Amino acid sequence: MTVSIVGLGLIGGSIALGLQESHFAEHFIGVENNLQHANKALALGLVNEVLSLEEAIQKSDLIIIAVPVDVTVILLPKILSLVNNQVVIDVGGTKYPMAEAVKNHSKRGNYVATHPMAGTEFSGPEAAVRQLFEDKYTVLCDIEDSSPEALSLVKAMYEALKMKITYMASAAHDVHTAYISHVSHICSFALAKTVLDKEKDEARIFELASSGFASTVRLAKSNPVTWIPIFKQNQDNILEVLDQYISELNKIRGFMEAGRDFPEAYESLRKHLVQANDIQRILK
Amino acid sequence: MTVSIVGLGLIGGSIALGLQESHFAEHFIGVENNLQHANKALALGLVNEVLSLEEAIQKSDLIIIAVPVDVTVILLPKILSLVNNQVVIDVGGTKYPMAEAVKNHSKRGNYVATHPMAGTEFSGPEAAVRQLFEDKYTVLCDIEDSSPEALSLVKAMYEALKMKITYMASAAHDVHTAYISHVSHICSFALAKTVLDKEKDEARIFELASSGFASTVRLAKSNPVTWIPIFKQNQDNILEVLDQYISELNKIRGFMEAGRDFPEAYESLRKHLVQANDIQRILK
Repeated sequence: MTVSIVGLGLIGGSIALGLQESHFAEHFIGVENNLQHANKALALGLVNEVLSLEEAIQKSDLIIIAVPVDVTVILLPKILSLVNNQVVIDVGGTKYPMAEAVKNHSKRGNYVATHPMAGTEFSGPEAAVRQLFEDKYTVLCDIEDSSPEALSLVKAMYEALKMKITYMASAAHDVHTAYISHVSHICSFALAKTVLDKEKDEARIFELASSGFASTVRLAKSNPVTWIPIFKQNQDNILEVLDQYISELNKIRGFMEAGRDFPEAYESLRKHLVQANDIQRILK
Repeated sequence: MTVSIVGLGLIGGSIALGLQESHFAEHFIGVENNLQHANKALALGLVNEVLSLEEAIQKSDLIIIAVPVDVTVILLPKILSLVNNQVVIDVGGTKYPMAEAVKNHSKRGNYVATHPMAGTEFSGPEAAVRQLFEDKYTVLCDIEDSSPEALSLVKAMYEALKMKITYMASAAHDVHTAYISHVSHICSFALAKTVLDKEKDEARIFELASSGFASTVRLAKSNPVTWIPIFKQNQDNILEVLDQYISELNKIRGFMEAGRDFPEAYESLRKHLVQANDIQRILK
């Protein structure tokens, strides 16, 4: 089996390492416009060779698109137009725009829409981690539009990465991830920006950060090149969630403001926070 | 040396374990109104005995107040009125209200205001962790109001816990922690509540949570019994930060809304997020 990986960053590189370890494929080809990333990926042994997209497709059984979603949505139909029996997947954080981009494509069956739910706040080939995906979930979307052969290969690939597989429609995926992934990133970016704008004493940030701040702003280190296209493609869902989040913050703000004159408002806030505590039932 | 710990929860219990390990004291007395917590703390070996507050003070060299800050502000002057040469510290997340509560107390010199910047989202004696404080910072406030003897004992205690010591005025402490600790908790509580209210499919939350959500909402598991009094005592500082945070979110929201008609608004958002990325320079 020969696998091509288009985009040798954190996700593409980690998939390469995971598939090497499990002996899912013998040969790994990288496609990477950034020459520095390409050389780094070769030096790290993420891939055996770096080729042009066309050459890579010709020589592959499976093509994995792991570039920012704004590039994916353009590249995916182009790649599908170049394949014969090859299977194509993408691993991006939005799924509905990809589904729309290829819904009438003659090779639609060769494509499986996927989203492995794993990552770190780091990026580039040196951020690749061998066991990034183990025991995490991957989402396969709109599987009725993929051929049974393509689906079976992609399931085997994610099993080789030791991932658990779950299924959703692409539109539902984009709603769920707006809540659970995309807006988390916006919360973190906004908190980091608030603190950086105001707290000019950086030593104080560093000293006091063990208080949970580090955990809450971790995602603010994420690469905007990855995240801006996700925010753009999923803006309707994200704006809806963001409005609910801001309204939730204003509710807490209101309890605290009322608490200046009516201490019992803090009892209402307490009940409110006890409801938020319920998250520990779902996330141990 | 005999140490009394008033409040045998996460922080009080972890201090007991850390001081036992470093042989800072030979005898540990607990003061705990919650009988279940008292028995649990004895069973876990956090303290050698549990006594009434008055008895504990009589038998101690050092008294550590580790209860919620609304109780601390009442207990601190009472305890100071009962001491002779004993040293008293508190470890709460607000410092100015304590400073105000004892500023004219005849035993003010026996008190050292402290805030070890460490914790987890768990609570109670079973949450106590031996190495909770190692390599973290502790803040000592208004040290000019403490006697040199008291200060020297408390510094030795934190060194025994392997903490790094930093100094602030209590009012400045409360401003800095509003930014870096208190509002982080509100962000997390609000995000957890937003997702729980809307996402009725709990399996989806669990499956998709590896996307960074788990990290951003970790603090939402925190105990409101600890946090409500902190929010109340530090409400002026917190409300100011919360307003800035909400305004920051509205700015991001505005870029995205504008991006519907003017794609270049996403370029402004990108620049904005690159500024937030700067947090990685301070927090590796």
